[in-house]
Amino acid sequence: MTVMRTVELEGHIIDSGAMGRCFGVVMDLGGEFEVEEFDVGRHKHAETYCRMRVSAESADDLRAILHELNQNGATVADPRDATLEAAPDEQVVPAEFYSTTNHPTFVRVDGSWVEVSDPEMDCALVVDRTEDDPVVRTKVLNAIEKGDLVVTGETGIRVEPPERPRNGGSSFGFMQGGVSSERPSASLIEEIADEMRAVRDEDGTVLVVCGPAIVHSGGRDALAELVREGYVDALSAGNGFAVHDLERNLYGTSLGVDTESLEHPRKGHKHHIYTISEIGRVGGIEAAVEAEIVDGGVMYQCIRNDVPYVLAGSIRDDGPLPDTITDAIEAQDAIREQAREADLVLMLSTLLHSVAVGNCLPSTTKTVCVDINPATVTQLLDRGSAQAIGMVTDIGTFVPMLADELLEAHR
Amino acid sequence: MTVMRTVELEGHIIDSGAMGRCFGVVMDLGGEFEVEEFDVGRHKHAETYCRMRVSAESADDLRAILHELNQNGATVADPRDATLEAAPDEQVVPAEFYSTTNHPTFVRVDGSWVEVSDPEMDCALVVDRTEDDPVVRTKVLNAIEKGDLVVTGETGIRVEPPERPRNGGSSFGFMQGGVSSERPSASLIEEIADEMRAVRDEDGTVLVVCGPAIVHSGGRDALAELVREGYVDALSAGNGFAVHDLERNLYGTSLGVDTESLEHPRKGHKHHIYTISEIGRVGGIEAAVEAEIVDGGVMYQCIRNDVPYVLAGSIRDDGPLPDTITDAIEAQDAIREQAREADLVLMLSTLLHSVAVGNCLPSTTKTVCVDINPATVTQLLDRGSAQAIGMVTDIGTFVPMLADELLEAHR
Amino acid sequence: MTVMRTVELEGHIIDSGAMGRCFGVVMDLGGEFEVEEFDVGRHKHAETYCRMRVSAESADDLRAILHELNQNGATVADPRDATLEAAPDEQVVPAEFYSTTNHPTFVRVDGSWVEVSDPEMDCALVVDRTEDDPVVRTKVLNAIEKGDLVVTGETGIRVEPPERPRNGGSSFGFMQGGVSSERPSASLIEEIADEMRAVRDEDGTVLVVCGPAIVHSGGRDALAELVREGYVDALSAGNGFAVHDLERNLYGTSLGVDTESLEHPRKGHKHHIYTISEIGRVGGIEAAVEAEIVDGGVMYQCIRNDVPYVLAGSIRDDGPLPDTITDAIEAQDAIREQAREADLVLMLSTLLHSVAVGNCLPSTTKTVCVDINPATVTQLLDRGSAQAIGMVTDIGTFVPMLADELLEAHR
Amino acid sequence: MTVMRTVELEGHIIDSGAMGRCFGVVMDLGGEFEVEEFDVGRHKHAETYCRMRVSAESADDLRAILHELNQNGATVADPRDATLEAAPDEQVVPAEFYSTTNHPTFVRVDGSWVEVSDPEMDCALVVDRTEDDPVVRTKVLNAIEKGDLVVTGETGIRVEPPERPRNGGSSFGFMQGGVSSERPSASLIEEIADEMRAVRDEDGTVLVVCGPAIVHSGGRDALAELVREGYVDALSAGNGFAVHDLERNLYGTSLGVDTESLEHPRKGHKHHIYTISEIGRVGGIEAAVEAEIVDGGVMYQCIRNDVPYVLAGSIRDDGPLPDTITDAIEAQDAIREQAREADLVLMLSTLLHSVAVGNCLPSTTKTVCVDINPATVTQLLDRGSAQAIGMVTDIGTFVPMLADELLEAHR
Repeated sequence: MTVMRTVELEGHIIDSGAMGRCFGVVMDLGGEFEVEEFDVGRHKHAETYCRMRVSAESADDLRAILHELNQNGATVADPRDATLEAAPDEQVVPAEFYSTTNHPTFVRVDGSWVEVSDPEMDCALVVDRTEDDPVVRTKVLNAIEKGDLVVTGETGIRVEPPERPRNGGSSFGFMQGGVSSERPSASLIEEIADEMRAVRDEDGTVLVVCGPAIVHSGGRDALAELVREGYVDALSAGNGFAVHDLERNLYGTSLGVDTESLEHPRKGHKHHIYTISEIGRVGGIEAAVEAEIVDGGVMYQCIRNDVPYVLAGSIRDDGPLPDTITDAIEAQDAIREQAREADLVLMLSTLLHSVAVGNCLPSTTKTVCVDINPATVTQLLDRGSAQAIGMVTDIGTFVPMLADELLEAHR
Repeated sequence: MTVMRTVELEGHIIDSGAMGRCFGVVMDLGGEFEVEEFDVGRHKHAETYCRMRVSAESADDLRAILHELNQNGATVADPRDATLEAAPDEQVVPAEFYSTTNHPTFVRVDGSWVEVSDPEMDCALVVDRTEDDPVVRTKVLNAIEKGDLVVTGETGIRVEPPERPRNGGSSFGFMQGGVSSERPSASLIEEIADEMRAVRDEDGTVLVVCGPAIVHSGGRDALAELVREGYVDALSAGNGFAVHDLERNLYGTSLGVDTESLEHPRKGHKHHIYTISEIGRVGGIEAAVEAEIVDGGVMYQCIRNDVPYVLAGSIRDDGPLPDTITDAIEAQDAIREQAREADLVLMLSTLLHSVAVGNCLPSTTKTVCVDINPATVTQLLDRGSAQAIGMVTDIGTFVPMLADELLEAHR
Repeated sequence: MTVMRTVELEGHIIDSGAMGRCFGVVMDLGGEFEVEEFDVGRHKHAETYCRMRVSAESADDLRAILHELNQNGATVADPRDATLEAAPDEQVVPAEFYSTTNHPTFVRVDGSWVEVSDPEMDCALVVDRTEDDPVVRTKVLNAIEKGDLVVTGETGIRVEPPERPRNGGSSFGFMQGGVSSERPSASLIEEIADEMRAVRDEDGTVLVVCGPAIVHSGGRDALAELVREGYVDALSAGNGFAVHDLERNLYGTSLGVDTESLEHPRKGHKHHIYTISEIGRVGGIEAAVEAEIVDGGVMYQCIRNDVPYVLAGSIRDDGPLPDTITDAIEAQDAIREQAREADLVLMLSTLLHSVAVGNCLPSTTKTVCVDINPATVTQLLDRGSAQAIGMVTDIGTFVPMLADELLEAHR
Repeated sequence: MTVMRTVELEGHIIDSGAMGRCFGVVMDLGGEFEVEEFDVGRHKHAETYCRMRVSAESADDLRAILHELNQNGATVADPRDATLEAAPDEQVVPAEFYSTTNHPTFVRVDGSWVEVSDPEMDCALVVDRTEDDPVVRTKVLNAIEKGDLVVTGETGIRVEPPERPRNGGSSFGFMQGGVSSERPSASLIEEIADEMRAVRDEDGTVLVVCGPAIVHSGGRDALAELVREGYVDALSAGNGFAVHDLERNLYGTSLGVDTESLEHPRKGHKHHIYTISEIGRVGGIEAAVEAEIVDGGVMYQCIRNDVPYVLAGSIRDDGPLPDTITDAIEAQDAIREQAREADLVLMLSTLLHSVAVGNCLPSTTKTVCVDINPATVTQLLDRGSAQAIGMVTDIGTFVPMLADELLEAHR
């Protein structure tokens, strides 16, 4: 039994790849397509329109094809309202719930297309009718409440995958799957600085995601300066980053030997645990700053300059610090709030925390990923940000050079 | 002002490296040593004894040197009892508490050397006098209770770092810092199988730490078989491993296309979320097995064969499953319990979970680390297990070949 | 001054990406395009045709755009003969010579399209009129002879980049930029075995490119068996692979200790040098086989079964063996000959030698890249083979499992 | 049949590890040892002396043990002259020739210990009696001439492995097996600059080994400046580095787009081939500088400032340039000459060329290895330099920061 459905695509769908991917999806999943209308964009600024009939050998196959087409920007042609079904229980979604992408998404409710607020991947879509106009929100599975009106199926949903920008030249690459080690490092750092200045000029929010390597490799002082000078609006990290930063403040020199220049692997690990116990003793980082136990570094500047931070716990943590959120769901919620606020996210030398933040980001948020490991940068860029810069470099030279670039004018 | 103290070492300290490391520690930290007595082990089975006087220019410097010497097996010569101090508050240790290694450790209490139960690194040592004989336990910082008698300083503590085994030939390397990619894979797998058989024959406990790559790369069926046949006594993993294993059971084939042979990156990610919602709907993995929703795979075999498992949460999780412990401290405690029971730990393709488990292990537990990334294997071996095999291989060929090796006899 | 030119594309150009890339090229390089005709392929088997006018602000800019369009399959519309210019000297090409891709290429000579024999990237195209019909060949720069008729400019050249195959299901991915670690290893090995059988059935040529890791990790015996059983038609390697293979034969056991099971880093390196001197003493590998100094292993089976091999030298070699070609250009020529003959190339655990072979391959040759390092596999796949399988696995388990798969029937 | 021999060790053999390694060697290879005399160094500056009798069950086993002991600094106690045997043919060594380490080595000839000139690993030792006093030289196998007096066996040979320096604080680590990513990058760069200044002040020779990443990542201009200002005395690289450097000079900007800021993967690869053909047309780099075709960059500064360079060929080269030495043995000889002259070697972002240079270096030459890939740095450090700094960083930020550090004073 052949079943079929008509879908439409519109936009810069050829050079953005959506059209090719949609043809590919149908062929990969064993279906057939028949283009009914195709109106090519004849020049750079003209959009292309395609209407095609997709057929498959079973309703199940067709549903799977439509799901993938939808996620690549094709919309079921016949405009009907999305199907809504009430959640049967707390944290339980209806069986055929629509699972989201992180692209801008619209849901047809009562005959109108409603834009989904806070797009986030792998969520359910919940329609809220308690207000004057219906509102559609993303909700992660564990946040579903009994009775939530959840969107199911593929009807009445429109996804807008990112398009190739018409004017090139931006350093934020379009859906670049890999990462370049072929760009001059200094000029990339300039472009990132320009972007940070631009966000600051528009009162936007720069979220910095920090790994412990920033401290080890010598980027800490420069980062603290950036926080102090107002280039960082929020900070997201794990317990380890904060401990290393505080440890450098508490035990930065010892035995008359400057720890900046002499390294003892394992030796001195005791200071890590001692730092946790010292901060724990006074009740947390803010208390330690107030008690003047801590008088410098990144966390210090966050406290002094009211830059909010989230420290998320993990099963690998020592301690942890009193400030660390040990429950993963609670920590995710805190991260999600940061992610939604952010206009520009700098992911600095932490795969783990960056993945957590990246999971919550819409594809439209600008992202900069910096790591010495190319696999980390590739993995972060692959999560589908439409505007991302990946840079494989040493965080210990990157942060000082970035700070120089940004703070030079002041000096 | 020069201060000094006398320390002693005994054992196979030359070829195990302890003697050289102790000389190095003194020089690195700016001290001086004077060997007072040195009785070399004249042949393979004879132990070496060294007594030396260590001096430094301040009490602080000397304390730091003694701490490092202690961790490398040197004991302060003059046998006095360890210093004990009561913990001032919940989760707060006395200021100069002794921070542990993961080696066998003895504490001198009331004139006798008491062996520390459950050695674990980066813990405090707590003396419990409530029983007939004093007991010394490791406690992580967050488990410290007000009034706990905590060991401080370096006096009255003896650490026994691992020694080079006298008879070679074991595949479990002695403190091997790196990892070999120069060993024939098949013969290494045989040796691991031998070790698993030996542990089983002695009713020991094999703990398997599992990463999701086991499922992707095709090792899942073989691992499930090993669980079914009783070669796995406990399983430790993250939420992701369990979801992937269950997803393979629920959605292993779809659209008439065998997912074993055709891959769709991102496509089909929906099944991941759907699996979580299906398991959540019935209330957990055990319920899903009972309801016959799940009828195969690793988690299924764990349920059916009463193999206990710990699923630990992280901020990168989807869902999570109802079985996943989302609080990091609670999850660490569950992992710690598993780690203490284990006689042999197989760390299979998961850096993150393996580090968490490794943090809780004494240096005497045999460990096998398998990963396709040499950096992961090196990092895990570096944590100081005295008896570890590192193997850089494909988990998708490793598990089937290991199962073949172990189950062959049955066939 | 605006200059313009009309180009045409034809084929499955939307889902193969050529159309999108061509639009992108024009925009990236600052040009404009105007689609004059666009005839979309309405279903899976229908081809798309596009004619567009491309304009730029200078002749230089237009030339650069046309070069890139040409390499992506667009042909200058107005069919004129290619421009030919005589090489001014040995190894010297005319200034604006056309630099090749590795795709099937056609050159218009005397009004007819002549297919280029042995497409290879980064070569010049030389038209040979000494025969009845003109012949067009690729020539590397160092092979250019004075007076060679070299193609210059972009006119009269047609490139056919690979197209997405219409029937899916082949394990040879279409231009896959990355590599999958998500495929079950065992099923991928089956597919590779199937392909090898298919090539053998058609009397095709399987070229195996070998790295020394095959020997270290225990894949040597299985590879020797594949050579003996006729599954390998040619072998390409460096000096190191051959030395390791021969060393295993000459010094495989020593001191009563089986080197299969006990490893001594650095220790035993002497055997490496000794092997070279022993083979050198008799004058080469073939002589060593005849003198029965060597009686097993991969090189032995090559000699015994008349499987031709190329051993290429490098500045990192010990020795080298008398068989090793130490001149890079001479070695490249030998490799090129092997590459042109091959129907299927297996690149086994050697980035360096594989890149050298890959440089000489047309994009239509099927390629299998196996390495434990994902970056190696990605880099090899990126060279633009239209039909490639990349597999991140342990060569020490891969070769034995592949041999099992292929030789099973015999047993 | 038990055979035995007495060996001696002297020096800082405990903390340098030689003593422990020697005990280990005997046990690993199935022998027994009996310490006859042991005189421990009682303080930091006192040396330890050990005499021990080593026994094995066969002459072959004993020979293998003695070989390994010798390479770790133990000398056969009974001082006899080394055994010499004439080479039977060109490039053919006597059967039991002594294969060298890269440590300082002494050979007993006519009753006197003669220091080996130019220690290099994996060579034969050849005694030259044509001069007044006997001279002992290292020779690679392919340089052996018929009749050369080659040292065989283990008698009369003394090796001095590196010792742990008595005064710490140098940034050049002692035999560090791994690499630190825990050192602040800026302070490491300062230390490297200090070392370069020190070598320059003593009229020493700095050899820089260069990979193409220097050009891609933006370190080229700074390196060219260092050459111009006299901080580089010799340069070693492959064909690729030179081509990329020259290409940047010839085609640095094109189409009005600064290549410093916009990247086109593959696009523009044509410039690579064009650069080779342009340089080839005039006959080489020096000619291109004289003809003012090339007027900047690293190779330009080498020509202008008489800094000698070696460009070695490989089978992966395009072209190559006329300056490139395509024969591997000839290229090795040129590299060997550079290596022997060098007081300090900087290995910048090239594993391949660095291994070739490192193969020729004595263990006493100071070495700095810089690469973004930790595995590369580890592999280079593992080759046994006694004084090496490894740094995992971005060459595109490293070279500019190093140049700033060195050239600042001038500005």
